[in-house]
Amino acid sequence: MSVVLSLKNCPSMRAFLAELLGTFILMIFGIGSVAQAVLSKETAGSHMSIHWSWGFGVALGVYASVGVSGGHINPAVSVAMATLGRLPWRKVPIYALGQYLGSFLAAVVVFLVYMDALHHYDGGVRQVTGVNATAGIWSTYPQPYVSTWTGLGDQIFGTAILLVCVMALTDSRHFGPGSALTPFCVGGVVVVIGMTFGLNCGYALNPARDLAPRAFTALAGWGSAPFSFRNYNWFWVPIVGPHIGALLGAHLYQIFVGLHWPDVDDVTPEAELEPIRKRLIELHPSEKESYS
Amino acid sequence: MSVVLSLKNCPSMRAFLAELLGTFILMIFGIGSVAQAVLSKETAGSHMSIHWSWGFGVALGVYASVGVSGGHINPAVSVAMATLGRLPWRKVPIYALGQYLGSFLAAVVVFLVYMDALHHYDGGVRQVTGVNATAGIWSTYPQPYVSTWTGLGDQIFGTAILLVCVMALTDSRHFGPGSALTPFCVGGVVVVIGMTFGLNCGYALNPARDLAPRAFTALAGWGSAPFSFRNYNWFWVPIVGPHIGALLGAHLYQIFVGLHWPDVDDVTPEAELEPIRKRLIELHPSEKESYS
Amino acid sequence: MSVVLSLKNCPSMRAFLAELLGTFILMIFGIGSVAQAVLSKETAGSHMSIHWSWGFGVALGVYASVGVSGGHINPAVSVAMATLGRLPWRKVPIYALGQYLGSFLAAVVVFLVYMDALHHYDGGVRQVTGVNATAGIWSTYPQPYVSTWTGLGDQIFGTAILLVCVMALTDSRHFGPGSALTPFCVGGVVVVIGMTFGLNCGYALNPARDLAPRAFTALAGWGSAPFSFRNYNWFWVPIVGPHIGALLGAHLYQIFVGLHWPDVDDVTPEAELEPIRKRLIELHPSEKESYS
Amino acid sequence: MSVVLSLKNCPSMRAFLAELLGTFILMIFGIGSVAQAVLSKETAGSHMSIHWSWGFGVALGVYASVGVSGGHINPAVSVAMATLGRLPWRKVPIYALGQYLGSFLAAVVVFLVYMDALHHYDGGVRQVTGVNATAGIWSTYPQPYVSTWTGLGDQIFGTAILLVCVMALTDSRHFGPGSALTPFCVGGVVVVIGMTFGLNCGYALNPARDLAPRAFTALAGWGSAPFSFRNYNWFWVPIVGPHIGALLGAHLYQIFVGLHWPDVDDVTPEAELEPIRKRLIELHPSEKESYS
Repeated sequence: MSVVLSLKNCPSMRAFLAELLGTFILMIFGIGSVAQAVLSKETAGSHMSIHWSWGFGVALGVYASVGVSGGHINPAVSVAMATLGRLPWRKVPIYALGQYLGSFLAAVVVFLVYMDALHHYDGGVRQVTGVNATAGIWSTYPQPYVSTWTGLGDQIFGTAILLVCVMALTDSRHFGPGSALTPFCVGGVVVVIGMTFGLNCGYALNPARDLAPRAFTALAGWGSAPFSFRNYNWFWVPIVGPHIGALLGAHLYQIFVGLHWPDVDDVTPEAELEPIRKRLIELHPSEKESYS
Repeated sequence: MSVVLSLKNCPSMRAFLAELLGTFILMIFGIGSVAQAVLSKETAGSHMSIHWSWGFGVALGVYASVGVSGGHINPAVSVAMATLGRLPWRKVPIYALGQYLGSFLAAVVVFLVYMDALHHYDGGVRQVTGVNATAGIWSTYPQPYVSTWTGLGDQIFGTAILLVCVMALTDSRHFGPGSALTPFCVGGVVVVIGMTFGLNCGYALNPARDLAPRAFTALAGWGSAPFSFRNYNWFWVPIVGPHIGALLGAHLYQIFVGLHWPDVDDVTPEAELEPIRKRLIELHPSEKESYS
Repeated sequence: MSVVLSLKNCPSMRAFLAELLGTFILMIFGIGSVAQAVLSKETAGSHMSIHWSWGFGVALGVYASVGVSGGHINPAVSVAMATLGRLPWRKVPIYALGQYLGSFLAAVVVFLVYMDALHHYDGGVRQVTGVNATAGIWSTYPQPYVSTWTGLGDQIFGTAILLVCVMALTDSRHFGPGSALTPFCVGGVVVVIGMTFGLNCGYALNPARDLAPRAFTALAGWGSAPFSFRNYNWFWVPIVGPHIGALLGAHLYQIFVGLHWPDVDDVTPEAELEPIRKRLIELHPSEKESYS
Repeated sequence: MSVVLSLKNCPSMRAFLAELLGTFILMIFGIGSVAQAVLSKETAGSHMSIHWSWGFGVALGVYASVGVSGGHINPAVSVAMATLGRLPWRKVPIYALGQYLGSFLAAVVVFLVYMDALHHYDGGVRQVTGVNATAGIWSTYPQPYVSTWTGLGDQIFGTAILLVCVMALTDSRHFGPGSALTPFCVGGVVVVIGMTFGLNCGYALNPARDLAPRAFTALAGWGSAPFSFRNYNWFWVPIVGPHIGALLGAHLYQIFVGLHWPDVDDVTPEAELEPIRKRLIELHPSEKESYS
């Protein structure tokens, strides 16, 4: 089988499958955590379990795809990376297709796994708002008191700060976490955004995370409400906001730090470098000169 | 003593003992966390402490055995690894025996440690269902509204996603967490599955984790109920489901990512490789050529 | 643009921007977590989400600045490092300016993001004390039963223990976490201080963290109360306390451990060194002599 | 000053100070977390914040001392290491003295930091049992339904499993977490023991952790009750139990895994070694032969 199906010479198809799988992993854990919290009436889930789950979902989704496609699992990230020259523009649609499809498939699978629990919860009446609302398991809705414009600002800001952190964590000129730990650190960024800027409208931060499951709910029994909510004046926010925010964040990091790296030896103040040099010399005395 | 007992030349016995110890560690923390939550009426435990404990249990169980036996601590994993050629088939029964035995011993030990608390809780009347039920400390039972078939699907799906993640984390061609961190990452996978797909039937995901403690409860005062529950139509689910799911997950990962790795230099898009190369050259200027 | 703006030859300006960005990241997550907990009436936040958020904020703020400026993001740390010779004194004001400015900007941004929620919560009446008090989102206030002198002691002690731990984690002669993990470990120190010594007066531990947002609240509708609280006899505590504590902690570590390091081979008792040596020899058999 | 005080040539005094500091760090976070939970009536603390704090306390205490003394911070560990030949017997009293003294000092400091809160909580009436009991902040007391013998078994078992895990994590022949991460992993072991075997009698697991603060409470206003509790038939349990358990655990690990390591190349089954070898060859193609 491996001979027949192998895509060794088809890097675009490989990247498509990797982004699909990575986004699928992100989404089953993300949506799944909301499903468990809602359907158990918070007896087996809470806002904390939801934040940790989105974080683990990001980390594991990135681990599952990073070696093949770079582990974007978010169209806003792919577009931002393209503007920085880190992804060829022609690959952006391929990445996005994998991301949206992976997210949609995860929405289907979580529905199937929790079909019995869902029926037990709402008796088959699918609702977007109200006490037994369940559409929020799949995609995000704002607090009643949050205006659409505040929501847009929230999504721009949240995604910008996500990208600032991702840029910092992957900037090889820092003393960063290194490739082994970066996926977990990026997951941690999502956890903390959930704990700090999740209140207004649920930290979508990712068009594929929000639009694909929203489409699923529209098709699977919730009717047009997921889109017609607030007179069709909400569903576009978690699509447009993250795209703007990702561009903003990626370039803000460059303006504050990324553009200003000098030659490598000048990166840290002399005094800071001393203990590092001493340690290196202790460990490799024979290479003493190369560190002084 | 070390001379008399040493098993340096008996790798099968070594692997048996390591899997026994690793599964024992997994299970005392896993079962122990449910015991503490139930017996304290959730004042010293909660669904979160249970998820974290299963995760730490997996991590520490793997750390304690990985160097000797690979740290499977789950018969479904051992069988799946055999189908991938990563464990000789003849060793599968040895591994499984260690896993079932370690799990059973842990069930006994947790019973002994919490004997006073158990008696205080139920007054000596051991129950499988009802307000003072305690059989769920040892093995898993589904929510009343979850059908046996949904439960089977849940176990297949949960174990499949566990294996997809384990395969991704241990695929040496990714920028993975590396051998030092992999046990913790695998523990994290179990934590997030608990927070997302634990509601239906308690994420057994491991035949040794479920069957051995179930047998213990049947022997230790709960009577035939642990097996006769739902007319003998439940106990097989956390055995059969994980075995199917593990096979499915291991091979799904291969189909989406594992089979398609090209030569090592083509793994990531050129642009993504740039910063890594630059860093390597900064760190080892003398080997500049080998990275370009 | 990169040509025009690049600050490659201006290390002070680079350090200023890095400390500004790092402190901004620390503060948006720190303040943001309190905002989410308070404004949701603890339905989407709790003391635990607050502690974790300050910890992640520290970790990510350090990661974003460490390679450029050393990642102090706290004036008390910068001053303490200067007394140890790890930062030139002339740079301290530059660092502090970036830290205070970053903290102030974060206070503004969190206000903007949560403006709708804030209005929904207090109806526009900004209060420092009482049931609907919101000033505590931005800066710290003591428990009613804690005297100002106990508060000062609390801030001295808390910051001292923070610095002892930071010094230990970054002492290259230990088997420390290494540069890749140190930011996360320092974040962990802040999490645990929050869980243990946050009760008295909210673990400010950082003059920039407390004074800048306090000034913001005074300007943004809370009036003079943030400063006049307790007859102008509180606001100085989270400024003076951390500066004293940081000096104390940094030098205490030196007295207990830092000053006494012998030549590298004598660092650990012989017996402890054995397994490390054996492993090194296993891994690099050709260099056997250099480890014996 | 550094010249006058330096103990470069006095390894015993260095180890004494390092164990004192490490145990002090462990204890201020451990006791502090219980103080915050109790004195806030669980509004700023919970069983979870207590478990995480003991874990962070262990991790940071070990990081602060490991390079000098090995980071035992527990007399039961020091004695067990001596029986394994990893610490000279003559150093055991020096280690223990530092550990008991560090623990006592931490008990004093937490008392001072929380003096106002303590007075607010109990109005100055120090109690060991009852609704306003506060002695449990400093040392451990069993549940009423737990017999002294069960408590002893609990302490033996808990400490044994701690040592099994510590031995596994530090066994250099495993694919372990490595020296950089081991302190955090050991902290994790304590977290999970708290979540699983903390119910019966509060997981002391460490004679210095329990006896020194108990003595402090006896001296600081709680009278003889900390020792006379259960007719002087409890206080010895968290001293004797951990010493027995540590010996048991350290040697159990040896019997199950430690004694049976073969030559280094036979450690894992051939099939398991394959991907590691492949990766090594990919990374260092010039050394291909040495890995085959």
